[in-house]
Amino acid sequence: MKGIAIIAVAAAVVGLVVAVILAAWIKKSGQGSDRMKEISGFIREGAFAFLKREYKIMAIVIIVLALAIGFGLQSVTTAILYVFGAVLSVLAGFFGMNVATWGNVRTANAAHESGMNKALKIAFRSGAVMGLAVAGLGLFGIGIVVVCLDLATVVQCITGFGFGASSMALFGRVGGGIYTKAADVGADLVGKVEAGIPEDDPRNPAVIADNVGDNVGDVAGMGSDLYESYCGSIISAITLAAVAAGASGGLFSEAEAALFPLIMAAVGILASIVGILLVRGKEGSNPANALNAGTYIASGVVVIVSIILSNVMLGSYFFAVPIVAGLIVGVAIGKITEIYTSGDYKSVKKIAEQSQTGAATTIISGLGVGMMSTVWPIICIAVGIFAAYFSTEQVGAGMGMYGIALAAVGMLSTTGMTVAVDAYGPVSDNAGGIAEMAELPESVREITDKLDSVGNTTAAIGKGFAIGSAALTALALFASYSAVTGLSAISLLNPIVIIGLFIGAMLPFMFSAFTMNSVGRAANQMIEEVRRQFRADKGILEGTSKPDYAHCVDISTQAALKEMIVPGVMAIVAPLAVGIILGPEALGGMLAGALASGVLLALMMANAGGAWDNAKKYIEEGHFGGKGSETHAAGVIGDTVGDPFKDTSGPSINILIKLMTIVSVVFAPLFVAIGGLLG
Amino acid sequence: MKGIAIIAVAAAVVGLVVAVILAAWIKKSGQGSDRMKEISGFIREGAFAFLKREYKIMAIVIIVLALAIGFGLQSVTTAILYVFGAVLSVLAGFFGMNVATWGNVRTANAAHESGMNKALKIAFRSGAVMGLAVAGLGLFGIGIVVVCLDLATVVQCITGFGFGASSMALFGRVGGGIYTKAADVGADLVGKVEAGIPEDDPRNPAVIADNVGDNVGDVAGMGSDLYESYCGSIISAITLAAVAAGASGGLFSEAEAALFPLIMAAVGILASIVGILLVRGKEGSNPANALNAGTYIASGVVVIVSIILSNVMLGSYFFAVPIVAGLIVGVAIGKITEIYTSGDYKSVKKIAEQSQTGAATTIISGLGVGMMSTVWPIICIAVGIFAAYFSTEQVGAGMGMYGIALAAVGMLSTTGMTVAVDAYGPVSDNAGGIAEMAELPESVREITDKLDSVGNTTAAIGKGFAIGSAALTALALFASYSAVTGLSAISLLNPIVIIGLFIGAMLPFMFSAFTMNSVGRAANQMIEEVRRQFRADKGILEGTSKPDYAHCVDISTQAALKEMIVPGVMAIVAPLAVGIILGPEALGGMLAGALASGVLLALMMANAGGAWDNAKKYIEEGHFGGKGSETHAAGVIGDTVGDPFKDTSGPSINILIKLMTIVSVVFAPLFVAIGGLLG
Repeated sequence: MKGIAIIAVAAAVVGLVVAVILAAWIKKSGQGSDRMKEISGFIREGAFAFLKREYKIMAIVIIVLALAIGFGLQSVTTAILYVFGAVLSVLAGFFGMNVATWGNVRTANAAHESGMNKALKIAFRSGAVMGLAVAGLGLFGIGIVVVCLDLATVVQCITGFGFGASSMALFGRVGGGIYTKAADVGADLVGKVEAGIPEDDPRNPAVIADNVGDNVGDVAGMGSDLYESYCGSIISAITLAAVAAGASGGLFSEAEAALFPLIMAAVGILASIVGILLVRGKEGSNPANALNAGTYIASGVVVIVSIILSNVMLGSYFFAVPIVAGLIVGVAIGKITEIYTSGDYKSVKKIAEQSQTGAATTIISGLGVGMMSTVWPIICIAVGIFAAYFSTEQVGAGMGMYGIALAAVGMLSTTGMTVAVDAYGPVSDNAGGIAEMAELPESVREITDKLDSVGNTTAAIGKGFAIGSAALTALALFASYSAVTGLSAISLLNPIVIIGLFIGAMLPFMFSAFTMNSVGRAANQMIEEVRRQFRADKGILEGTSKPDYAHCVDISTQAALKEMIVPGVMAIVAPLAVGIILGPEALGGMLAGALASGVLLALMMANAGGAWDNAKKYIEEGHFGGKGSETHAAGVIGDTVGDPFKDTSGPSINILIKLMTIVSVVFAPLFVAIGGLLG
Repeated sequence: MKGIAIIAVAAAVVGLVVAVILAAWIKKSGQGSDRMKEISGFIREGAFAFLKREYKIMAIVIIVLALAIGFGLQSVTTAILYVFGAVLSVLAGFFGMNVATWGNVRTANAAHESGMNKALKIAFRSGAVMGLAVAGLGLFGIGIVVVCLDLATVVQCITGFGFGASSMALFGRVGGGIYTKAADVGADLVGKVEAGIPEDDPRNPAVIADNVGDNVGDVAGMGSDLYESYCGSIISAITLAAVAAGASGGLFSEAEAALFPLIMAAVGILASIVGILLVRGKEGSNPANALNAGTYIASGVVVIVSIILSNVMLGSYFFAVPIVAGLIVGVAIGKITEIYTSGDYKSVKKIAEQSQTGAATTIISGLGVGMMSTVWPIICIAVGIFAAYFSTEQVGAGMGMYGIALAAVGMLSTTGMTVAVDAYGPVSDNAGGIAEMAELPESVREITDKLDSVGNTTAAIGKGFAIGSAALTALALFASYSAVTGLSAISLLNPIVIIGLFIGAMLPFMFSAFTMNSVGRAANQMIEEVRRQFRADKGILEGTSKPDYAHCVDISTQAALKEMIVPGVMAIVAPLAVGIILGPEALGGMLAGALASGVLLALMMANAGGAWDNAKKYIEEGHFGGKGSETHAAGVIGDTVGDPFKDTSGPSINILIKLMTIVSVVFAPLFVAIGGLLG
């Protein structure tokens, strides 16, 4: 067994080495003028100032939770794995964001000196470093654990690793989401609306904070979210391996069932590397084609290998079905998201059209699109669950839950590639910002705009994928929860389960209310500060004196870290409270309720936000009156409402549903021992 | 048994007789000037034009569904009871709305000739007629069925009666909701915003349609919703009576358990009559006090009698617990709703304050309030379920589900009073409209405004109550579903249940998207028509020629009836499709998912809408710049978004969750026989 696990570790190391090589290749590229270096320096400084403060708090959280897990609530090994999982998450975020802040200025410079082809390559490879860091460190960590510990201990304690990933993702996604939107909304409302200066204008004191936010929220935050899903899916499959082996009637052992997801993840990393290296733009062509080609190639490789390995490792072709189903569901959700959020399709055009009768109809039609956009992803997920479960049940009754975990593994196997495509967006966005601030020629901005506009679509697709993968991962972990608690049924005919279901369904709404209000409060602080700077020094708007960027960065940083405390505590305390007071069955109901309503709410918010964003862009392209018209003003209002929807509250729900589930799995023995004070 | 059931029928008849006496009393009051009679005549004409068209379609639906139930899918008796339940629902709506359209003009005249006291009395008693019609006809129908049929047949077929109530509520709530908001939004956007004429100005061609909408949506629609809940709760308790009797260990018989909810409903009607007759305003005092006093008195009577009857009829005081718990939950949800939606509390003030930075922050903070407002109602419902279940389980294991049904019965026992308070609002609103159009003195409008402002709060509270009661009723019917299917568990560890849960959670989002888009489309038609009339005849705006009211009424009527087809078909087809294709367990999961996400979404939408409405009013009172300011413009946008939220989509979800559950109960034998084509 150890031998095969080492293959997984080796593949992870290959992924990390490629990431380092790509990083070195990016660093070698030119950074352009001194002005560009200066701006990019500000962004780096701001990003790392945030990270530094965040790490201090993370360190406290890690120590407290590790002590809680190790002494009293669970085992010391689990606590150690918790720390390991958390530290690797932090490392992935640090490495990826570091390279992203190298990539932005170099992308701008490449657009200036060489043209679109080179710019695309740098931007995409900066994202690829993040992607390979996420997948590489995730698989490396789990692989090392499997190599070093005996299987029984792995199964018992590996959820600690997942909990580590989850608790750091809370900081990354929720804190990052609040950071980026506080800066964005603050910069827009005073700069663009009140002062009438363009986006990314260096006279805007919040402009650096806004660009830092792209890195903090859209690169590091998104990365930590997918790192959590990635690890969670593999861990869930490992914990269900014993059940699968038992149901296989001797066809394969628990060790083999535990290794299959590891090896599929290894294949996924290698396939992602192939996909990443094949992405190259053609001058004048649509960059989206290159990105799509890379994704399809990586997925194709995984499909083919999964069919072979399924039979070789587990003695049946049926295990390829969930892997393939997971991959298809992931790609399908991405495509559906595109249809509802891209300006090329009718939903976005309809919102733009409705904006002609004012902001109220913009909002109503956008919410309508967001709600409608949930239908097909849910059907895809349902079909995916169905295929994954019933195909594996053919091998032996009781195998199905393992099949669902494999679907999550399949969906996330190409995480390296998916994150690369996703993180490419904010790097291009930053490059555009730097081009604007450094006053590079119009032609440069045109290239970065083109890259950025593709980036907007890939970001929306990435969000859909993140939600879908969170759903499948949480579901797989829910299966682990049932295995760990030993519950034979969590019946909806038991009212305590219904009570849990109601409470669970309520939590994503409460969580979203918290995060939206947080953005509102933090943005207000930012607005006050920008206004104060404009009042205090008239020279700022005239361009004769420099604004105090650092203070704005500081406001976003403080607000993000302060505002995430309440939702963060809630995500950890809610399952503990329900598990202890109402018992493990009620907690099962709660997890299912949160999963169901959370996925819906997240899809609605992310897609409504994406659709509003692109409806505004569609109007800006000259439709229905174009820039400066009443229609455009309505579109801007939609976009502003959509900002916290798509970049804070929506994605944060992913964390909520996964974190609550993994907390439940980790502390399940405690709940079973207590049995519910009231239950 | 028959003897006791006759008491329930007698109480229902008393309620109906009081309703008729009140109606006669209202009709005797003066109608004022010829102009007032003319306007009120237009509103009546419009309302009955809508009803007439609606009845034609209803007749077809009733025939088709009755045939489907009677031949092929269920029994002939069920089909007959279906028709009976449907016809009584139609009768209640007809009678109640008829009197409401008598009441509006007489309230305006009383405000003119006698002052607030008399005006309040007429408006409230108009609502009371609707309330007593709803409760009286509901209990009369069920009572007659129990008297005429043997118990076994009742248990088997009474759900047909509930299905009749549900399918008519679909027309009332969804069709009515689309009607009223198409007219309202259309009238506001062209009249108030474009032409700059005040609310309820007779020059606005859509003004009559708008006033008709108050009757169609807020009186008849709301009444049909609560009629459905009222009947559903009693029916569910009857179907669970056998289970309860079996669990009681001989303490009481099935017949006794089936009669207890009937008798409690009878007590509720008599208590409501007491409460209604005690409502009398004092000149100069807040009308809300009088309404609240009536509600508390009616509830108090039910509490006391339930304690006595619980022991007398079922041999244990424990059965009073669910009744009292239901009543408390209903009142508590109303109070919580008030806190989140009334201008006297901080949530609404905060939205108004946030409106100073523009419409985007109005929307964000309103959605935040809506989401946050879900927390306490869910906790109340959870505590109510807990109390109802575990108190009755003390009497005998397996009794709990019957307890939950009793909680719904308790909550809805004072429906007569609740609907009276709720329907009082639109009558006052109409009275204000008539006062405006008939150019009565300012002092009259002041009185009607005061009545109307209380009516806005009672309407919001009524919405909260309607959602809470829909949740408990649907849950009780869900228990009936499990009893009818004979499923011993609907386990969340079965993936087919999870698939059902996801699909179920998605349906309210899809349904809301449909209904919101419907309002958008219908409002657009109305806008075009009003603009067309203004263009075609300049005399309309100058006040020299009369607009064509009838054409606007016609547009709302056609749009409402056309737009409700798709959501209506969806609500009936979804449970049939899932039940037939995936089987009864998946359907159980679907019902639970729809219940959980539907209640949350309905609470969020209704409360956000109410909060926006009152935030706008709060600004209009002179805060943050008052009428005509930028802040006010932002508030108006919030209010317009809130209109379909609170009056169409939110309340329609009540119908969706109840209708889907009752369809599932009625056709459960079919699903069990098929067993799921794929399951």
